[in-house]
Amino acid sequence: MARRRRREKRSVSAVQQLPWRSLSNPYAPIEVLSAQQVVDIVDGALAILATQGMRFLEEGSRRFMQQAGADVDDDTMMVRLDPSMVREKVAMAPETFTLAARNPEKNLSLGHNSIVFSSVGGPAFCSDLKKGRRPGTYAELCDFFKLVQSLNIIHQEGGGGFEPMDLPPETRHLDLYLAQIRYTDKNCQAYALGGQRTADAIDMTCIALQTDRAALAQDPAVLGIINTNSPMQFDIPMTEAVVELANAGQVPCITPFTLAGSMSPATIAGTLVQQTAEVLAVATFTQCLRPGTPIMYGAFASNVDMKSGAPALGTPEYTKAALASGQIARHLGLPFRSSSTTVANCVDAQAAYESEMSIWGAIMGHANLVNHAAGWLEGGLTASFEKLILDAEMLQMMAEFMRPIDVNDDELALDAIAEVQPGGHHFGTAHTLARYETAFYPTMLSDRQNFENFRESGSRDTTTRAHAIWQQLLADYEQPPLDPAVDEALLDFVVRRKAERTTAAG
Amino acid sequence: MARRRRREKRSVSAVQQLPWRSLSNPYAPIEVLSAQQVVDIVDGALAILATQGMRFLEEGSRRFMQQAGADVDDDTMMVRLDPSMVREKVAMAPETFTLAARNPEKNLSLGHNSIVFSSVGGPAFCSDLKKGRRPGTYAELCDFFKLVQSLNIIHQEGGGGFEPMDLPPETRHLDLYLAQIRYTDKNCQAYALGGQRTADAIDMTCIALQTDRAALAQDPAVLGIINTNSPMQFDIPMTEAVVELANAGQVPCITPFTLAGSMSPATIAGTLVQQTAEVLAVATFTQCLRPGTPIMYGAFASNVDMKSGAPALGTPEYTKAALASGQIARHLGLPFRSSSTTVANCVDAQAAYESEMSIWGAIMGHANLVNHAAGWLEGGLTASFEKLILDAEMLQMMAEFMRPIDVNDDELALDAIAEVQPGGHHFGTAHTLARYETAFYPTMLSDRQNFENFRESGSRDTTTRAHAIWQQLLADYEQPPLDPAVDEALLDFVVRRKAERTTAAG
Repeated sequence: MARRRRREKRSVSAVQQLPWRSLSNPYAPIEVLSAQQVVDIVDGALAILATQGMRFLEEGSRRFMQQAGADVDDDTMMVRLDPSMVREKVAMAPETFTLAARNPEKNLSLGHNSIVFSSVGGPAFCSDLKKGRRPGTYAELCDFFKLVQSLNIIHQEGGGGFEPMDLPPETRHLDLYLAQIRYTDKNCQAYALGGQRTADAIDMTCIALQTDRAALAQDPAVLGIINTNSPMQFDIPMTEAVVELANAGQVPCITPFTLAGSMSPATIAGTLVQQTAEVLAVATFTQCLRPGTPIMYGAFASNVDMKSGAPALGTPEYTKAALASGQIARHLGLPFRSSSTTVANCVDAQAAYESEMSIWGAIMGHANLVNHAAGWLEGGLTASFEKLILDAEMLQMMAEFMRPIDVNDDELALDAIAEVQPGGHHFGTAHTLARYETAFYPTMLSDRQNFENFRESGSRDTTTRAHAIWQQLLADYEQPPLDPAVDEALLDFVVRRKAERTTAAG
Repeated sequence: MARRRRREKRSVSAVQQLPWRSLSNPYAPIEVLSAQQVVDIVDGALAILATQGMRFLEEGSRRFMQQAGADVDDDTMMVRLDPSMVREKVAMAPETFTLAARNPEKNLSLGHNSIVFSSVGGPAFCSDLKKGRRPGTYAELCDFFKLVQSLNIIHQEGGGGFEPMDLPPETRHLDLYLAQIRYTDKNCQAYALGGQRTADAIDMTCIALQTDRAALAQDPAVLGIINTNSPMQFDIPMTEAVVELANAGQVPCITPFTLAGSMSPATIAGTLVQQTAEVLAVATFTQCLRPGTPIMYGAFASNVDMKSGAPALGTPEYTKAALASGQIARHLGLPFRSSSTTVANCVDAQAAYESEMSIWGAIMGHANLVNHAAGWLEGGLTASFEKLILDAEMLQMMAEFMRPIDVNDDELALDAIAEVQPGGHHFGTAHTLARYETAFYPTMLSDRQNFENFRESGSRDTTTRAHAIWQQLLADYEQPPLDPAVDEALLDFVVRRKAERTTAAG
């Protein structure tokens, strides 16, 4: 009875959104580089790896790469790679792969023209219109996950919306994974900082999917973002995460964070060379660890502000670099990851236009994973509840943009055009009535009232409306079913691992 | 001395913007239709014109078209056109043309890959953050024109930012033209409602350019927006404007306003058929009037909101229709006009994302004219001073996006990458220092401060900053030089024509 009442309540929700749907981009990508320019950039990256190399801080990884054929200098910790070795190894990575979700209807395909939108991962703070910007709590993070679950346009949870600061840092990831699995039935990214956190993600995913590591290796479900330490360095926690992921057949999404003018040269071409060199070094490492490991070519190339040296995101340079990165990834035969970004400090017009510049670069660059696609604010320092809604609206619009125009006799509508008197209107035609409710994108957030009604209803701007929408979604939230035995097993795992961590720390 | 002081003041302006520059799109357009689908749509339009025709309300135009070979039914006022006649006539229109500006450095090229951004034209109201939304005055319109002049990214004034409601409607256009010419040296659109207003624009342009109608016909300078009365009707004021423009060798920019589900069928394909039929009917008329008259294929296709029937702009359907319209225009060999639009009632995130969806459709559809590209708000009912600045920022970002990535040895920066230690930074390299100040887009409006500085400096959102920018630009404004004899001749013309209008009315 209670359940039925909740269903009824849901069906009258004021929040209108698109249904869950896998997306692919039917249009040709925008190409900002010629084929020769792509080759020049990749050749530059290979030359860098052959002559200078990349610094691998973790000693075991240097030993391993030496045995695999790399030229290793232990004094400088540089690992030099022959171009033929890089090409041979990277060719072993698949062009496309799938990621399993707890709900099999939400399994993800990554590669070719498919496109996956993930929610923001990693910010230190959270914010909303009423409480402002603040360190977030675990309860608030659980709410954030409920919204990620509720918003159909978000295909994947992005590895933790923000840090739950009321929990101890050494075991926080365990509570985070538990909340991911409990409150969403979507694929969730790992919090891939260090080997143990990554291993815990893999183990808890096995419990959630009621599978084991051997089966998971055949049917991967864990993707971790692997950031290089640009320029040209690969640090120990990330090395450990790659080892855990690759050995388990899970997915390192290799993503240099290059800001042209600080972490990379002050040119887009040079930044793309360096980004490609860093991806290729780690990609080679993954394929030496386990040939055929699914990986992604990740790009997060932008530039610094010329006046202040501050990061600038969602810039024209960012858009061009995203489109170019897609071309490079396709040239290398790797699935491509891009992002939606902004440096705006509040959810306003700048937040929208910088995110749009990012999204267009990602989508028309044929990104297979658009990371941080919903909720990112303030250069990634903050996860915003209102930005989550704003981004979901912008993503829904792009999803609709990717539905091709139907052209057939019925859609060409010559009869309907002939039927309506010149100067008349199409409101009442049979042609219109037959498709009126489904013909066009039904907005979730946009206000299409006229000015008088807008003013009379309180002149609520987009951010204010977004606030009301996420509160409504939380009120309407229904937890996806989870086998109680699985829930119990997850909780047991968390308790046991916390005890081990505490013992290890004590 | 006073002049010198003004120059000095200008050089320290806090408003940083890109220099005036002609733009062209170096990237291939996004194609959302196959070649066959384009043909199907154009064939559908030709079939409509052959079987049903378009209603021409003005009797003289019907007589004229009958003599030119059309099948005219005076009872229904329908003008039917044979497909071969349409194709033959439309082929006479040039694929590209130029528009002269008062400052020859600001002459415009329209066609092929060139792209022109115009300011908003036609709203009934104006608005700004301090005074709100209101009927505007002539003094405020003059300020708006000063901003259009000041913003380098705006290539063309769009035919009057908003109605100066303190002036009598019958002679208002004369004061408007005078202000256009005095306060800007850019090309200005005509207020093309009716024959006399259009003729006045042509005559005043002749005075401003110190030329005559014969020379102007060889070197056009007046573009007028010609809206059909969708569906399938061509009204008397617009017919008169076309006759004036075409006979003078000036440019009718033929633009149906089709909202799928009200003024056109509730499908994108059907809307494109009707839009194309309407453009082709008027295009044929222009080429019968004067073969070789430069014209544009204008698109303003969007959809109604499904729930309310209200106009919806900057929607995914709008973007797809813009891209498809570009394909149709290129198929027909006509320069293409699109727009930047939004139905937002205030300058917020929705205003930004709907405009972005429009701009991306226009630019990647290879629009040659992006009409209403700056200042449009509230479905075109209001010209906003802050939106003008917001749009200018978004347009500048797109202009930078259209600068191709340089790829050469210096830009690939292999030496700079080798020079910097892994984990170090590129701030101080010779490579960075050599290009630091010019390497990246210098934002006019975006705030890239960190959150603490943002908060300390008053948490000013994008719209608040836009307000400060337009006020600064007004303070810095310098009127472009105008020969006093020309100014006097313009004023004489205005006084004489006002007297004639008053006499005619009296």
